Amino acid sequence: MFGYGLRKVFYTNFRLARKELTGTILESYDPRVVLLKLDSGYNIGIPLDKILDSKILKKFKEVEISDEDFVSRKKGLKKIGLVVTGGTIASKLDVKTGGVKPLTKLKEFANFYPKLFDMVDVKKIEIPFMMASENMSSEHWIKIAKSVEKLLNDKEIEGVIVTHGTDTLHYTSAALSFFLKDLNKPVVLTYSQRSIDRASSDADLNLICAAKMALSNVAEVMLVGHASTNDDFCFALKGTKTRKMHTSRRDSFKTINDIPIAKVWPEKIEFLREYNLRNNKRKVNLDVNFSDKVSLIKYYPGQKANILDFLSEKCKGIIIEATGLGHFASSESKNNWIPKIKKLIKKGVIICAVPQTLYGGLNPNVYSSGRELKECGIIFLKDMLPETAFIKLGWVLGHRNWKGKEKEKMLNNFSGELSELLTE
Amino acid sequence: MFGYGLRKVFYTNFRLARKELTGTILESYDPRVVLLKLDSGYNIGIPLDKILDSKILKKFKEVEISDEDFVSRKKGLKKIGLVVTGGTIASKLDVKTGGVKPLTKLKEFANFYPKLFDMVDVKKIEIPFMMASENMSSEHWIKIAKSVEKLLNDKEIEGVIVTHGTDTLHYTSAALSFFLKDLNKPVVLTYSQRSIDRASSDADLNLICAAKMALSNVAEVMLVGHASTNDDFCFALKGTKTRKMHTSRRDSFKTINDIPIAKVWPEKIEFLREYNLRNNKRKVNLDVNFSDKVSLIKYYPGQKANILDFLSEKCKGIIIEATGLGHFASSESKNNWIPKIKKLIKKGVIICAVPQTLYGGLNPNVYSSGRELKECGIIFLKDMLPETAFIKLGWVLGHRNWKGKEKEKMLNNFSGELSELLTE
Repeated sequence: MFGYGLRKVFYTNFRLARKELTGTILESYDPRVVLLKLDSGYNIGIPLDKILDSKILKKFKEVEISDEDFVSRKKGLKKIGLVVTGGTIASKLDVKTGGVKPLTKLKEFANFYPKLFDMVDVKKIEIPFMMASENMSSEHWIKIAKSVEKLLNDKEIEGVIVTHGTDTLHYTSAALSFFLKDLNKPVVLTYSQRSIDRASSDADLNLICAAKMALSNVAEVMLVGHASTNDDFCFALKGTKTRKMHTSRRDSFKTINDIPIAKVWPEKIEFLREYNLRNNKRKVNLDVNFSDKVSLIKYYPGQKANILDFLSEKCKGIIIEATGLGHFASSESKNNWIPKIKKLIKKGVIICAVPQTLYGGLNPNVYSSGRELKECGIIFLKDMLPETAFIKLGWVLGHRNWKGKEKEKMLNNFSGELSELLTE
Repeated sequence: MFGYGLRKVFYTNFRLARKELTGTILESYDPRVVLLKLDSGYNIGIPLDKILDSKILKKFKEVEISDEDFVSRKKGLKKIGLVVTGGTIASKLDVKTGGVKPLTKLKEFANFYPKLFDMVDVKKIEIPFMMASENMSSEHWIKIAKSVEKLLNDKEIEGVIVTHGTDTLHYTSAALSFFLKDLNKPVVLTYSQRSIDRASSDADLNLICAAKMALSNVAEVMLVGHASTNDDFCFALKGTKTRKMHTSRRDSFKTINDIPIAKVWPEKIEFLREYNLRNNKRKVNLDVNFSDKVSLIKYYPGQKANILDFLSEKCKGIIIEATGLGHFASSESKNNWIPKIKKLIKKGVIICAVPQTLYGGLNPNVYSSGRELKECGIIFLKDMLPETAFIKLGWVLGHRNWKGKEKEKMLNNFSGELSELLTE
């Protein structure tokens, strides 16, 4: 009965004990539950046994559309570019498993998100790959950056939306923040935590707010998604200061040590801080030099320093998530890391510290452990997020002409990765 | 002029442009700033150039007290035990460096915290060691547990306070939560982020609220500290559900995936959830079996699976901070971790997954990556914190008679480490 591309859609009125609801029926993975897309765009689930009566108001067949020309472009709308990379926002429920499987055809994407195509003219779509984000690595960040660059340098395109899985979205947003130099237009990453055909999906609002930001004057790499568990507005967050902080909530992305750039509604934007301005005449430049010879570890009490030997065999740089203001086992401990750190830094390994608390900044000057570690030559990255620091170190080490200047580059604020807003 | 044990104390009135302040002068690391302990217990710093006039109201010499009998026990007060382990709460400013150095004498501790000794009768003090917490490891958690056990099994003692550095306090609170079986009385860990002789120190309120909880009916391992940056009340947090979430704020400890046990003021407690009741007739039992052959790693995109070979050479158990609902590189990725995971689990290595988002719970059933990893035999630890999971796995593997039952034990809720409160 339900098949994509050619499916019957029922616009239906339901009468429940306490209220009436009208909307379009979605494919449900649970035969005891009806999923209904309300006119507001919000999806809800209604247990079958709560429905007193129902009435089909409209029944229509969707037109089969080809992958090549599926986009129903409306005249007069502003043009954006879209990069689709996989993830839940490009997935649908798998009726068999109750899990989620990827949308494999572009037309499915268009079917699922008609509101986006009512709001903007999606001039070009790039699909560098379709993948769950936990399976990505640097080659994927580079591919996305190249797709984005191509779209940004199209004169007609006002901004670019990248849809992406949530798991490692903040790594990708950091990578794009460093890879896209002299950014001319908005680059908006968005996602969903619940696929669009599921009750209470966040996909619709996220995508529409992403479109709103893609047309704005903000020339920044941003992540746009639910600001709270309410389905009312989104935040636009800085690509280098954001982290997935919840496994399942719709507002799982949070700005750490910073404030959002803006609150975003489908119809308006409220700015919360300064941002870089759009300049459509400028061309964006790609700087995708990246070395995979970096590691990220989190220090825990009792951890042996020989992990550093293992890592430094293949790596030129190591990010350590330190405790507190920037500490790990020092000379007070039997497990002293200082001699090993000194040896590796002498050998040319770049070792950086970031806060494992995530919030707050490092200050190695307060305690003796910190002072000892600082004297070894560790680079303390203030309030930089571990994930952003990992990406940045790979990017810095990818530039051969920056050899010897790694500390200066790591502490240079290229894309807002170091906050100036830090207070207690 | 200033020396501990025998020091002159000035109770002084200052006249500033807009107000008058009266309090006791503290040693200041900055000659341009006067540090004043107000009668409220709050410390403030006053730039010298803001002081119009000052008047010494009282001047007195402190009496030299010996380490053995420094505690001025007041009659009729309830008795508690105190375990001092180092950290900022047992530190003072180092006038030379502007940093912090540990209090090395008990009498200094008594000098710094007169309010505690006004509120409770500190019957016994144990000092297993004095150390910055980033330098601790399992031997220290075991020593602390033994000190706490001794005090808890003293019939006269109502509860125990443990003062501790902040950096790894949440590892220690998790360890004590598992090590102290059949807990009979309150065990309260507390700390400070700013040493007591510093302007805006949090030490006084934390310690007094800790004492309030130590006298309560709550037989739990708790962490007590500032609930916000205001100096008004504290939270009592569960030892297994708490994490240091800020490098420097006074309210850096947060409950994750749970709610605090109580709000605590020096004079009252407001309970927010259920708790285990005190039973002074019961004896607490120590269960300090712990294996150091555990590791904790955080998966990041592109990470090579050979890290697992290195770790499993020495470890019987590995905790992996997975992305999202419990994912890392699976068969969709060139960097597929599945074959390595299967091989190690077959060899008997216990591999567990926890959320690197910290907030929320794992659910490996939603996405194909998760289902693949689940089929390998990875133990998904729901919403358990990475630090708590690391401690718990060491504790489970420390029990030889639990061999073969590791999964059952890891998923058994011994001390509230798995939340039943999880909703979106």
